[in-house]
Amino acid sequence: METAAPFEPSEILLLGPGPSPVASSVLRAQALPVLGHLDSEFVALMDRVQDGLRAVFGTRNRFTLPISGTGSAGMEACLTNVVEPGDRVVVGVHGVFGGRIADLAARLGAEVVRVEALFGSALDEAAMAAAIAAGPTRLVCFVHAETSTGVLQPCERIVAAAREADALVLADCVTSLGGLDLGADARGFDLVYSGTQKCLSVPPGLAPVTVSDRALERIRARRSRVPSWYFDFALLAGYWDAETSRAYHHTAPVSMVYGLHEGLRLVLEEGLEDRARRHRQAAERLYAGLDVLGLECVVVEPRLRTPMLTSVRIPDGVQDLEVRRCLRRDHHIEIGGGLGSLAGRAWRIGLMGEGARAEVVDRLIEALGACLGRA
Amino acid sequence: METAAPFEPSEILLLGPGPSPVASSVLRAQALPVLGHLDSEFVALMDRVQDGLRAVFGTRNRFTLPISGTGSAGMEACLTNVVEPGDRVVVGVHGVFGGRIADLAARLGAEVVRVEALFGSALDEAAMAAAIAAGPTRLVCFVHAETSTGVLQPCERIVAAAREADALVLADCVTSLGGLDLGADARGFDLVYSGTQKCLSVPPGLAPVTVSDRALERIRARRSRVPSWYFDFALLAGYWDAETSRAYHHTAPVSMVYGLHEGLRLVLEEGLEDRARRHRQAAERLYAGLDVLGLECVVVEPRLRTPMLTSVRIPDGVQDLEVRRCLRRDHHIEIGGGLGSLAGRAWRIGLMGEGARAEVVDRLIEALGACLGRA
Repeated sequence: METAAPFEPSEILLLGPGPSPVASSVLRAQALPVLGHLDSEFVALMDRVQDGLRAVFGTRNRFTLPISGTGSAGMEACLTNVVEPGDRVVVGVHGVFGGRIADLAARLGAEVVRVEALFGSALDEAAMAAAIAAGPTRLVCFVHAETSTGVLQPCERIVAAAREADALVLADCVTSLGGLDLGADARGFDLVYSGTQKCLSVPPGLAPVTVSDRALERIRARRSRVPSWYFDFALLAGYWDAETSRAYHHTAPVSMVYGLHEGLRLVLEEGLEDRARRHRQAAERLYAGLDVLGLECVVVEPRLRTPMLTSVRIPDGVQDLEVRRCLRRDHHIEIGGGLGSLAGRAWRIGLMGEGARAEVVDRLIEALGACLGRA
Repeated sequence: METAAPFEPSEILLLGPGPSPVASSVLRAQALPVLGHLDSEFVALMDRVQDGLRAVFGTRNRFTLPISGTGSAGMEACLTNVVEPGDRVVVGVHGVFGGRIADLAARLGAEVVRVEALFGSALDEAAMAAAIAAGPTRLVCFVHAETSTGVLQPCERIVAAAREADALVLADCVTSLGGLDLGADARGFDLVYSGTQKCLSVPPGLAPVTVSDRALERIRARRSRVPSWYFDFALLAGYWDAETSRAYHHTAPVSMVYGLHEGLRLVLEEGLEDRARRHRQAAERLYAGLDVLGLECVVVEPRLRTPMLTSVRIPDGVQDLEVRRCLRRDHHIEIGGGLGSLAGRAWRIGLMGEGARAEVVDRLIEALGACLGRA
């Protein structure tokens, strides 16, 4: 290591499941002079970041902030604060990330009720509602846009069933935030987490979360202490909430917060509606291009496809890795492999944030055609 | 937020308890093109970062990697993996950060035995040894360089007592890593965590940790599952360990890893011995300057002072905040306030990494003298 040279990464077009392409102004923001985490200029920036996050989440929740970790840290923060041993937690599992929620809830001592669906299908809302009603449910969890399959989950009936049962609703919006009209409050989500490296087009490292007052009340009424110090919402609020003392909790990842601020600024400058439309249009262009190449989407019903992430069936006789290596080596493009039961059977193409553009889709389709010998 | 301008932070000389001044090449590294977290170039960089961390920790531990969170996430990762409910855990508390360890261990269900010392004093090694021997101790924890007081903790006897009791040794080296000869293996530390924003002079956001094989064996023999998914060492090893499948765990904070790599490169280019000497010399120059200004160190015995962080008594009649505001406003210098029982009674001056230089000390002393009217 002593004599190692500075790192010089290649420029790769990131069209996998994230990280997504990053605007140059966001990268530049990460190189700005570092301020102290209690400096008045930085604290003012924290307020702006929280306002920006409220806008993209579509929420008025006071407790809206970036957890100092990647998207999975957002999952962990939400579950660790809300779940107590013995709690009945209903988890929809129709992809890898639902499975992850179920795994963590079990580690936290919950009685986990899994409601499963095939990878590539949506959860059956009626089955979720029945599971919720079947016991004294404390928490209902599902993934809004499954990054492992590309399914956009309809959830109106799930949320209604949770409300009926007086259970909290936790939604994994890692891939949906910033790429469609999320409207977390309107949808009735109590705990939402996301990541910066998907449709916000910011490098990975922070996990935006928003938590309803209703959920915070339940957390305050816990019988046991939160089994985490780093993710404890009460301590985090003491640092992030403008009406508190701004008490030192942990040292905020200052450069990442700079990047997130710049990313949010670009999102809101574009406008959420225009941005959602851009993601939908890029997806439509992709579907058309795949069709020309004779490739099929894993998610059959178009209304269940999430525009920012498309799973594509790998045709018989085509080698997964060979094609991905060809894209990376000859065309400087990254797409993702399949996860879980789709490993080796599907590619995952992300058109997220800066990547959701017609010219990007065209470049990808041309390259994919060349690598498949179908150009 | 929609119409908000890009953020333009002031250039502040960071001489508080961290973040520390960052080399411009590290900031530039954070603006490099983002690669996928499973990209072969990035994976090769991960190996280099692990090698670099082993060198600065002074360890041959395979399990040596940066946790994707700030220094406190390193604490949480180590404790969450190793502590099980009912475990007897002896914690030395001679500052805020020892108290934090005790708090988290209790949240994890440990039987916590606190051995306390006044803020500004070192832990009594004999008292620690007695507490360790008084029961079937599983884990012994202490802070090597207390960032809240500036005490460098002698620990030979503590480690020997832990070995005698067949207990694991956990050392918080947040402030010491990269600023002195740590030698984690030689000292007999089993679990060590740190942060990037102290003597490595990298922005906050990652927590380097190293864990001995002995500790990993104990973790594998747990009776209960690790109550965390994000920090689970077995899952992290599956992504970071070069001899595994590099299985996707979470999306690594790519830009932060770039910054850490560049920071480690600079540390090793300088050499650990030279760097340690530079930190000692800067501290000596600071002590001399404080003496001229009539200011006293909180830690009376020089051998117990950690060179990179010096607590200074606020003289009677001097207003803490007024002086810090004067430094920030008129001299563009940040120093830290006191924590815990030293709040309002001490300043904390960090000379860490890029900040540990004679010209920096001179600038600080001149500015401090001006703000105190003692120039």
